[in-house]
Amino acid sequence: MGEPILKRERVRDHLLELIETHPSGAPIPAERVLCQQLSVSRPTVRSAVEELVNLGLLVRQHGRGTFVARAKITQELVSDSHAMTAPAASGTWSSRVLEHAKVPAGARVGRRLHISPAAEIHYIARLRLVDGEPVAIEHLHVPVAVAPGLTLHDMESGDFYERLREHDVHVRDAVQSIEPTVTNDTESALLDVPVLAPALLFERLTTDAQGRQVEYVHSIYRGDRYRIVSRLTF
Amino acid sequence: MGEPILKRERVRDHLLELIETHPSGAPIPAERVLCQQLSVSRPTVRSAVEELVNLGLLVRQHGRGTFVARAKITQELVSDSHAMTAPAASGTWSSRVLEHAKVPAGARVGRRLHISPAAEIHYIARLRLVDGEPVAIEHLHVPVAVAPGLTLHDMESGDFYERLREHDVHVRDAVQSIEPTVTNDTESALLDVPVLAPALLFERLTTDAQGRQVEYVHSIYRGDRYRIVSRLTF
Repeated sequence: MGEPILKRERVRDHLLELIETHPSGAPIPAERVLCQQLSVSRPTVRSAVEELVNLGLLVRQHGRGTFVARAKITQELVSDSHAMTAPAASGTWSSRVLEHAKVPAGARVGRRLHISPAAEIHYIARLRLVDGEPVAIEHLHVPVAVAPGLTLHDMESGDFYERLREHDVHVRDAVQSIEPTVTNDTESALLDVPVLAPALLFERLTTDAQGRQVEYVHSIYRGDRYRIVSRLTF
Repeated sequence: MGEPILKRERVRDHLLELIETHPSGAPIPAERVLCQQLSVSRPTVRSAVEELVNLGLLVRQHGRGTFVARAKITQELVSDSHAMTAPAASGTWSSRVLEHAKVPAGARVGRRLHISPAAEIHYIARLRLVDGEPVAIEHLHVPVAVAPGLTLHDMESGDFYERLREHDVHVRDAVQSIEPTVTNDTESALLDVPVLAPALLFERLTTDAQGRQVEYVHSIYRGDRYRIVSRLTF
Protein backbone atom coordinates (compact mmCIF):
# COMPACT_ATOMS: atom_id res chain seq x y z
CA MET A 1 0.00 0.00 0.00
CA GLY A 2 3.09 2.28 0.03
CA GLU A 3 4.08 3.80 -3.31
CA PRO A 4 0.67 4.09 -5.02
CA ILE A 5 -0.81 6.48 -2.44
CA LEU A 6 2.14 8.86 -2.52
CA LYS A 7 2.30 8.75 -6.34
CA ARG A 8 -1.39 9.48 -6.75
CA GLU A 9 -1.11 12.18 -4.10
CA ARG A 10 1.69 13.83 -6.10
CA VAL A 11 -0.31 13.90 -9.33
CA ARG A 12 -3.39 15.17 -7.51
CA ASP A 13 -1.32 17.78 -5.64
CA HIS A 14 0.21 19.01 -8.90
CA LEU A 15 -3.25 19.50 -10.40
CA LEU A 16 -4.62 21.13 -7.22
CA GLU A 17 -1.63 23.47 -7.25
CA LEU A 18 -2.52 24.49 -10.83
CA ILE A 19 -6.14 25.01 -9.79
CA GLU A 20 -5.27 27.06 -6.72
CA THR A 21 -2.71 29.28 -8.42
CA HIS A 22 -4.59 29.99 -11.66
CA PRO A 23 -7.67 32.10 -12.24
CA SER A 24 -11.04 30.58 -13.01
CA GLY A 25 -11.20 29.63 -16.69
CA ALA A 26 -7.44 29.12 -17.13
CA PRO A 27 -6.59 26.04 -19.23
CA ILE A 28 -4.57 23.20 -17.70
CA PRO A 29 -1.86 21.46 -19.78
CA ALA A 30 -2.83 18.57 -22.08
CA GLU A 31 -2.66 15.03 -20.60
CA ARG A 32 0.49 14.09 -22.55
CA VAL A 33 2.27 17.21 -21.28
CA LEU A 34 1.28 16.36 -17.70
CA CYS A 35 2.57 12.78 -18.19
CA GLN A 36 5.96 14.15 -19.21
CA GLN A 37 6.10 16.77 -16.46
CA LEU A 38 5.23 14.25 -13.76
CA SER A 39 6.86 11.13 -15.26
CA VAL A 40 3.69 9.10 -14.82
CA SER A 41 1.52 7.08 -17.18
CA ARG A 42 -1.42 8.45 -19.16
CA PRO A 43 -4.07 6.46 -17.18
CA THR A 44 -2.70 7.87 -13.91
CA VAL A 45 -3.02 11.44 -15.19
CA ARG A 46 -6.40 10.77 -16.77
CA SER A 47 -7.89 9.30 -13.60
CA ALA A 48 -6.61 12.22 -11.51
CA VAL A 49 -8.07 14.76 -13.97
CA GLU A 50 -11.38 12.88 -14.08
CA GLU A 51 -11.59 12.87 -10.31
CA LEU A 52 -11.18 16.66 -10.18
CA VAL A 53 -13.73 17.12 -12.98
CA ASN A 54 -16.21 15.00 -10.99
CA LEU A 55 -15.55 17.12 -7.92
CA GLY A 56 -16.27 20.26 -9.94
CA LEU A 57 -12.77 21.72 -9.51
CA LEU A 58 -11.96 21.35 -13.22
CA VAL A 59 -14.33 21.81 -16.14
CA ARG A 60 -13.91 19.83 -19.36
CA GLN A 61 -15.10 21.47 -22.57
CA HIS A 62 -15.47 19.07 -25.44
CA GLY A 63 -12.84 19.64 -28.13
CA ARG A 64 -11.42 22.66 -26.27
CA GLY A 65 -9.62 21.21 -23.27
CA THR A 66 -9.83 21.28 -19.48
CA PHE A 67 -10.11 24.46 -17.43
CA VAL A 68 -9.94 25.68 -13.85
CA ALA A 69 -13.48 25.97 -12.41
CA ARG A 70 -14.77 28.88 -10.35
CA ALA A 71 -13.43 29.29 -6.83
CA LYS A 72 -15.49 28.03 -3.90
CA ILE A 73 -17.52 30.26 -1.63
CA THR A 74 -15.86 30.14 1.76
CA GLN A 75 -18.14 30.08 4.78
CA GLU A 76 -16.72 30.74 8.21
CA LEU A 77 -18.25 28.51 10.81
CA VAL A 78 -18.66 30.67 13.89
CA SER A 79 -20.63 29.93 17.00
CA ASP A 80 -21.74 33.39 18.02
CA SER A 81 -23.42 34.85 14.98
CA HIS A 82 -26.21 34.28 12.52
CA ALA A 83 -23.74 32.79 10.10
CA MET A 84 -25.88 29.83 9.11
CA THR A 85 -28.99 31.87 8.35
CA ALA A 86 -27.25 34.68 6.58
CA PRO A 87 -23.92 33.27 5.45
CA ALA A 88 -21.10 35.78 5.74
CA ALA A 89 -19.78 34.54 2.44
CA SER A 90 -18.63 36.54 -0.56
CA GLY A 91 -21.07 37.41 -3.34
CA THR A 92 -24.65 38.65 -3.39
CA TRP A 93 -27.17 36.19 -1.98
CA SER A 94 -30.72 35.99 -3.26
CA SER A 95 -33.42 33.35 -3.10
CA ARG A 96 -36.40 31.94 -4.97
CA VAL A 97 -39.35 30.27 -3.23
CA LEU A 98 -39.89 26.74 -4.56
CA GLU A 99 -42.80 25.88 -2.33
CA HIS A 100 -44.71 27.29 0.61
CA ALA A 101 -47.44 25.55 2.61
CA LYS A 102 -49.10 25.10 5.99
CA VAL A 103 -49.02 21.31 6.53
CA PRO A 104 -49.01 18.68 9.31
CA ALA A 105 -45.49 18.18 10.70
CA GLY A 106 -45.37 14.43 10.07
CA ALA A 107 -43.56 11.98 12.37
CA ARG A 108 -39.96 12.97 11.77
CA VAL A 109 -40.26 16.75 11.69
CA GLY A 110 -42.73 16.49 14.59
CA ARG A 111 -40.25 14.53 16.68
CA ARG A 112 -37.52 17.09 15.98
CA LEU A 113 -39.75 20.01 16.92
CA HIS A 114 -41.29 18.16 19.92
CA ILE A 115 -44.81 18.49 18.52
CA SER A 116 -47.45 15.98 17.43
CA PRO A 117 -47.15 14.62 13.87
CA ALA A 118 -50.60 16.13 13.25
CA ALA A 119 -49.63 19.62 14.49
CA GLU A 120 -49.36 22.19 11.72
CA ILE A 121 -46.11 23.76 10.57
CA HIS A 122 -45.19 26.60 8.25
CA TYR A 123 -43.06 25.03 5.53
CA ILE A 124 -40.98 26.79 2.92
CA ALA A 125 -38.50 25.41 0.38
CA ARG A 126 -36.15 27.96 -1.14
CA LEU A 127 -33.45 27.92 -3.76
CA ARG A 128 -30.58 30.09 -2.60
CA LEU A 129 -28.35 31.79 -5.15
CA VAL A 130 -25.04 33.64 -5.05
CA ASP A 131 -24.56 36.19 -7.81
CA GLY A 132 -27.52 34.58 -9.58
CA GLU A 133 -26.06 31.06 -9.49
CA PRO A 134 -27.87 28.36 -7.45
CA VAL A 135 -25.80 27.09 -4.49
CA ALA A 136 -28.27 25.62 -2.01
CA ILE A 137 -31.78 24.31 -1.40
CA GLU A 138 -33.16 25.12 2.04
CA HIS A 139 -36.19 23.56 3.75
CA LEU A 140 -37.47 25.54 6.73
CA HIS A 141 -40.10 24.27 9.22
CA VAL A 142 -41.65 26.39 12.00
CA PRO A 143 -44.55 25.18 14.23
CA VAL A 144 -47.66 27.26 13.55
CA ALA A 145 -48.32 27.32 17.33
CA VAL A 146 -45.01 29.15 17.84
CA ALA A 147 -45.78 31.95 15.40
CA PRO A 148 -49.34 31.73 14.06
CA GLY A 149 -49.10 34.94 12.05
CA LEU A 150 -45.83 34.15 10.28
CA THR A 151 -46.03 35.17 6.62
CA LEU A 152 -44.28 33.97 3.48
CA HIS A 153 -42.58 37.37 3.45
CA ASP A 154 -41.19 36.75 6.98
CA MET A 155 -39.88 33.30 6.02
CA GLU A 156 -38.23 34.65 2.90
CA SER A 157 -36.49 37.36 4.84
CA GLY A 158 -32.71 37.62 4.90
CA ASP A 159 -32.90 38.17 8.63
CA PHE A 160 -35.49 35.61 9.60
CA TYR A 161 -34.58 35.70 13.32
CA GLU A 162 -35.29 39.44 13.39
CA ARG A 163 -38.74 38.69 11.86
CA LEU A 164 -39.31 35.98 14.51
CA ARG A 165 -38.58 38.55 17.24
CA GLU A 166 -41.45 40.65 15.88
CA HIS A 167 -43.63 37.59 16.52
CA ASP A 168 -42.25 37.49 20.08
CA VAL A 169 -39.98 34.49 19.39
CA HIS A 170 -36.44 35.05 20.68
CA VAL A 171 -33.99 32.46 19.35
CA ARG A 172 -31.36 31.44 21.89
CA ASP A 173 -29.25 28.61 20.47
CA ALA A 174 -29.13 25.91 17.86
CA VAL A 175 -27.58 22.51 17.30
CA GLN A 176 -26.32 22.10 13.80
CA SER A 177 -25.02 19.01 12.04
CA ILE A 178 -23.06 18.74 8.83
CA GLU A 179 -22.79 15.61 6.72
CA PRO A 180 -21.57 14.86 3.22
CA THR A 181 -24.14 13.68 0.74
CA VAL A 182 -24.70 13.47 -3.01
CA THR A 183 -27.45 15.20 -4.99
CA ASN A 184 -30.52 13.34 -6.30
CA ASP A 185 -32.34 14.08 -9.59
CA THR A 186 -34.50 16.93 -8.28
CA GLU A 187 -31.67 18.56 -6.37
CA SER A 188 -29.31 18.25 -9.33
CA ALA A 189 -31.80 19.90 -11.67
CA LEU A 190 -32.39 22.79 -9.25
CA LEU A 191 -28.71 23.27 -8.41
CA ASP A 192 -27.53 22.79 -12.00
CA VAL A 193 -25.03 20.02 -11.15
CA PRO A 194 -24.69 16.41 -12.36
CA VAL A 195 -26.67 13.74 -10.48
CA LEU A 196 -24.66 12.30 -7.55
CA ALA A 197 -22.52 15.45 -7.26
CA PRO A 198 -20.89 15.91 -3.82
CA ALA A 199 -22.88 18.17 -1.50
CA LEU A 200 -23.14 19.16 2.15
CA LEU A 201 -26.27 18.38 4.14
CA PHE A 202 -26.89 20.86 6.98
CA GLU A 203 -29.49 20.27 9.65
CA ARG A 204 -30.29 22.84 12.31
CA LEU A 205 -32.66 22.71 15.26
CA THR A 206 -33.17 26.08 16.92
CA THR A 207 -34.39 26.71 20.47
CA ASP A 208 -35.85 29.95 21.80
CA ALA A 209 -35.47 31.71 25.16
CA GLN A 210 -38.45 29.71 26.53
CA GLY A 211 -36.72 26.44 25.60
CA ARG A 212 -39.15 25.68 22.76
CA GLN A 213 -37.99 24.09 19.49
CA VAL A 214 -38.92 26.89 17.11
CA GLU A 215 -37.19 26.04 13.86
CA TYR A 216 -35.98 22.96 12.01
CA VAL A 217 -33.98 23.53 8.83
CA HIS A 218 -32.29 21.17 6.45
CA SER A 219 -30.32 22.36 3.47
CA ILE A 220 -28.25 20.94 0.66
CA TYR A 221 -25.21 22.98 -0.44
CA ARG A 222 -23.32 22.38 -3.69
CA GLY A 223 -19.95 20.86 -2.91
CA ASP A 224 -18.25 22.42 -5.93
CA ARG A 225 -19.20 25.91 -4.74
CA TYR A 226 -19.11 25.69 -0.98
CA ARG A 227 -16.54 25.13 1.74
CA ILE A 228 -16.65 25.66 5.51
CA VAL A 229 -13.72 27.17 7.33
CA SER A 230 -13.20 27.21 11.08
CA ARG A 231 -10.41 28.56 13.28
CA LEU A 232 -9.22 26.42 16.16
CA THR A 233 -7.19 27.74 19.07
CA PHE A 234 -5.15 25.41 21.27
CA MET B 1 -41.99 22.99 -8.79
CA GLY B 2 -44.44 22.78 -5.86
CA GLU B 3 -45.95 19.39 -5.13
CA PRO B 4 -43.09 17.08 -6.16
CA ILE B 5 -40.61 18.43 -3.60
CA LEU B 6 -43.00 18.12 -0.68
CA LYS B 7 -44.11 14.63 -1.79
CA ARG B 8 -40.55 13.36 -2.10
CA GLU B 9 -39.71 15.00 1.21
CA ARG B 10 -42.58 13.11 2.87
CA VAL B 11 -41.42 9.73 1.54
CA ARG B 12 -37.83 10.50 2.49
CA ASP B 13 -38.88 11.74 5.93
CA HIS B 14 -40.91 8.60 6.54
CA LEU B 15 -37.87 6.44 5.75
CA LEU B 16 -35.52 8.64 7.81
CA GLU B 17 -37.96 8.38 10.71
CA LEU B 18 -37.80 4.56 10.46
CA ILE B 19 -34.00 4.73 10.35
CA GLU B 20 -33.72 7.08 13.32
CA THR B 21 -36.18 5.24 15.53
CA HIS B 22 -35.05 1.66 14.83
CA PRO B 23 -31.86 -0.10 15.90
CA SER B 24 -29.10 -0.92 13.45
CA GLY B 25 -30.00 -4.08 11.52
CA ALA B 26 -33.79 -3.67 11.83
CA PRO B 27 -35.67 -4.47 8.59
CA ILE B 28 -37.75 -1.79 6.86
CA PRO B 29 -41.13 -2.68 5.32
CA ALA B 30 -41.27 -4.06 1.76
CA GLU B 31 -41.72 -1.55 -1.09
CA ARG B 32 -45.35 -2.50 -1.73
CA VAL B 33 -46.18 -2.00 1.96
CA LEU B 34 -44.52 1.43 1.91
CA CYS B 35 -46.51 2.35 -1.24
CA GLN B 36 -49.76 1.55 0.58
CA GLN B 37 -48.74 3.30 3.81
CA LEU B 38 -47.71 6.47 2.00
CA SER B 39 -50.17 6.36 -0.92
CA VAL B 40 -47.42 6.88 -3.46
CA SER B 41 -46.26 4.95 -6.52
CA ARG B 42 -43.71 2.15 -6.51
CA PRO B 43 -41.06 4.15 -8.45
CA THR B 44 -41.32 6.99 -5.91
CA VAL B 45 -40.69 4.59 -3.02
CA ARG B 46 -37.96 2.75 -4.90
CA SER B 47 -36.03 5.91 -5.75
CA ALA B 48 -36.22 7.14 -2.13
CA VAL B 49 -34.97 3.77 -0.82
CA GLU B 50 -32.17 3.69 -3.40
CA GLU B 51 -31.06 7.17 -2.42
CA LEU B 52 -30.75 6.15 1.24
CA VAL B 53 -28.92 2.93 0.28
CA ASN B 54 -26.45 5.03 -1.76
CA LEU B 55 -25.95 7.32 1.22
CA GLY B 56 -25.19 4.32 3.41
CA LEU B 57 -28.18 4.87 5.74
CA LEU B 58 -29.91 1.69 4.56
CA VAL B 59 -28.28 -1.62 3.62
CA ARG B 60 -29.80 -3.90 0.99
CA GLN B 61 -29.18 -7.63 1.36
CA HIS B 62 -29.93 -9.59 -1.77
CA GLY B 63 -33.02 -11.79 -1.34
CA ARG B 64 -33.39 -10.80 2.32
CA GLY B 65 -34.62 -7.22 2.27
CA THR B 66 -33.47 -3.75 3.30
CA PHE B 67 -32.16 -2.91 6.76
CA VAL B 68 -31.22 0.07 8.91
CA ALA B 69 -27.45 0.68 8.72
CA ARG B 70 -25.21 1.44 11.68
CA ALA B 71 -25.54 4.83 13.35
CA LYS B 72 -23.09 7.61 12.49
CA ILE B 73 -20.23 8.65 14.69
CA THR B 74 -21.00 12.15 15.91
CA GLN B 75 -18.10 14.57 16.13
CA GLU B 76 -18.50 17.79 18.03
CA LEU B 77 -16.81 20.67 16.31
CA VAL B 78 -15.30 22.75 19.07
CA SER B 79 -12.80 25.53 18.78
CA ASP B 80 -10.89 25.16 22.02
CA SER B 81 -9.78 21.55 22.09
CA HIS B 82 -7.75 19.00 20.17
CA ALA B 83 -10.96 17.67 18.70
CA MET B 84 -9.67 17.30 15.19
CA THR B 85 -6.53 15.37 16.15
CA ALA B 86 -8.16 13.16 18.73
CA PRO B 87 -11.86 13.18 17.91
CA ALA B 88 -14.05 13.16 21.01
CA ALA B 89 -16.33 10.70 19.28
CA SER B 90 -17.79 7.50 20.61
CA GLY B 91 -15.97 4.18 20.09
CA THR B 92 -12.35 3.11 20.36
CA TRP B 93 -10.06 4.76 17.84
CA SER B 94 -7.01 3.00 16.44
CA SER B 95 -4.86 3.49 13.36
CA ARG B 96 -2.73 1.67 10.83
CA VAL B 97 0.22 3.29 9.03
CA LEU B 98 -0.21 3.07 5.24
CA GLU B 99 2.96 4.90 4.33
CA HIS B 100 5.74 6.85 5.98
CA ALA B 101 8.51 8.79 4.22
CA LYS B 102 10.84 11.77 4.33
CA VAL B 103 10.23 13.48 0.97
CA PRO B 104 10.44 16.91 -0.75
CA ALA B 105 7.32 18.99 0.03
CA GLY B 106 6.38 19.63 -3.60
CA ALA B 107 4.79 22.87 -4.82
CA ARG B 108 1.38 22.64 -3.18
CA VAL B 109 2.31 21.31 0.25
CA GLY B 110 5.34 23.64 0.21
CA ARG B 111 3.15 26.65 -0.46
CA ARG B 112 0.79 25.67 2.38
CA LEU B 113 3.68 25.23 4.83
CA HIS B 114 5.53 28.32 3.54
CA ILE B 115 8.62 26.30 2.60
CA SER B 116 10.44 25.61 -0.67
CA PRO B 117 9.03 22.77 -2.82
CA ALA B 118 12.44 21.10 -2.42
CA ALA B 119 12.45 21.33 1.40
CA GLU B 120 11.97 17.98 3.11
CA ILE B 121 8.87 17.00 5.04
CA HIS B 122 7.94 14.10 7.29
CA TYR B 123 4.96 12.44 5.60
CA ILE B 124 2.66 9.82 7.05
CA ALA B 125 -0.56 8.34 5.67
CA ARG B 126 -2.74 6.52 8.20
CA LEU B 127 -5.95 4.58 8.11
CA ARG B 128 -8.05 5.49 11.16
CA LEU B 129 -10.47 2.97 12.59
CA VAL B 130 -13.28 3.08 15.15
CA ASP B 131 -13.96 -0.23 16.89
CA GLY B 132 -11.84 -1.89 14.18
CA GLU B 133 -13.83 -0.42 11.29
CA PRO B 134 -12.09 2.01 8.89
CA VAL B 135 -13.58 5.52 9.00
CA ALA B 136 -10.87 7.86 7.69
CA ILE B 137 -7.60 8.23 5.79
CA GLU B 138 -5.32 10.93 7.15
CA HIS B 139 -2.29 12.47 5.42
CA LEU B 140 0.02 14.38 7.76
CA HIS B 141 2.90 16.65 6.63
CA VAL B 142 5.45 18.29 8.97
CA PRO B 143 8.52 20.22 7.74
CA VAL B 144 11.72 18.38 8.73
CA ALA B 145 13.25 21.77 9.64
CA VAL B 146 10.56 22.26 12.31
CA ALA B 147 11.19 18.95 14.07
CA PRO B 148 14.23 17.16 12.62
CA GLY B 149 14.10 14.29 15.11
CA LEU B 150 10.40 13.47 14.69
CA THR B 151 9.89 9.71 14.60
CA LEU B 152 7.24 7.48 13.07
CA HIS B 153 6.22 6.68 16.64
CA ASP B 154 5.63 10.41 17.35
CA MET B 155 3.53 10.83 14.22
CA GLU B 156 1.44 7.79 15.02
CA SER B 157 0.73 9.06 18.51
CA GLY B 158 -2.83 9.69 19.66
CA ASP B 159 -1.65 12.98 21.14
CA PHE B 160 0.61 14.23 18.39
CA TYR B 161 0.66 17.83 19.70
CA GLU B 162 2.03 16.58 23.02
CA ARG B 163 4.80 14.77 21.07
CA LEU B 164 5.51 18.00 19.14
CA ARG B 165 5.94 19.85 22.43
CA GLU B 166 8.71 17.41 23.33
CA HIS B 167 10.41 18.59 20.12
CA ASP B 168 9.93 22.19 21.32
CA VAL B 169 7.07 22.90 18.90
CA HIS B 170 4.11 24.56 20.62
CA VAL B 171 0.99 24.59 18.46
CA ARG B 172 -1.08 27.74 18.83
CA ASP B 173 -3.94 27.67 16.35
CA ALA B 174 -5.19 26.12 13.14
CA VAL B 175 -7.38 26.96 10.20
CA GLN B 176 -9.51 24.05 9.16
CA SER B 177 -11.71 23.63 6.13
CA ILE B 178 -14.42 21.08 5.48
CA GLU B 179 -15.74 20.15 2.05
CA PRO B 180 -17.90 17.36 0.71
CA THR B 181 -16.25 14.96 -1.69
CA VAL B 182 -16.66 11.43 -3.04
CA THR B 183 -14.21 8.54 -2.62
CA ASN B 184 -11.93 7.38 -5.44
CA ASP B 185 -10.84 3.75 -6.10
CA THR B 186 -7.97 3.68 -3.60
CA GLU B 187 -9.93 5.45 -0.88
CA SER B 188 -12.97 3.20 -1.41
CA ALA B 189 -10.85 0.06 -1.10
CA LEU B 190 -9.20 1.29 2.11
CA LEU B 191 -12.43 2.56 3.68
CA ASP B 192 -14.50 -0.41 2.53
CA VAL B 193 -17.17 1.71 0.79
CA PRO B 194 -18.42 1.79 -2.83
CA VAL B 195 -16.53 4.02 -5.29
CA LEU B 196 -17.98 7.57 -5.34
CA ALA B 197 -19.42 7.23 -1.82
CA PRO B 198 -20.07 10.58 -0.07
CA ALA B 199 -17.20 11.67 2.18
CA LEU B 200 -15.90 14.71 4.03
CA LEU B 201 -12.56 16.26 3.10
CA PHE B 202 -10.85 17.98 6.03
CA GLU B 203 -7.82 20.21 5.58
CA ARG B 204 -5.95 21.72 8.51
CA LEU B 205 -2.99 24.09 8.60
CA THR B 206 -1.52 24.48 12.06
CA THR B 207 0.63 27.37 13.30
CA ASP B 208 2.92 27.32 16.34
CA ALA B 209 3.67 29.95 18.97
CA GLN B 210 6.48 31.34 16.76
CA GLY B 211 4.04 31.82 13.87
CA ARG B 212 5.52 28.98 11.83
CA GLN B 213 3.35 26.66 9.73
CA VAL B 214 4.17 23.38 11.47
CA GLU B 215 1.58 20.93 10.22
CA TYR B 216 -0.57 20.38 7.15
CA VAL B 217 -3.15 17.61 7.32
CA HIS B 218 -5.75 16.44 4.87
CA SER B 219 -8.15 13.65 5.66
CA ILE B 220 -11.07 11.83 4.06
CA TYR B 221 -13.88 10.72 6.41
CA ARG B 222 -16.57 8.22 5.41
CA GLY B 223 -19.89 10.02 5.01
CA ASP B 224 -21.94 7.02 6.06
CA ARG B 225 -20.14 6.85 9.41
CA TYR B 226 -19.34 10.43 10.24
CA ARG B 227 -21.24 13.62 11.08
CA ILE B 228 -20.11 16.93 12.58
CA VAL B 229 -22.21 18.67 15.19
CA SER B 230 -21.78 22.23 16.39
CA ARG B 231 -23.68 24.34 18.89
CA LEU B 232 -24.49 27.92 17.97
CA THR B 233 -25.48 30.59 20.48
CA PHE B 234 -27.30 33.71 19.40
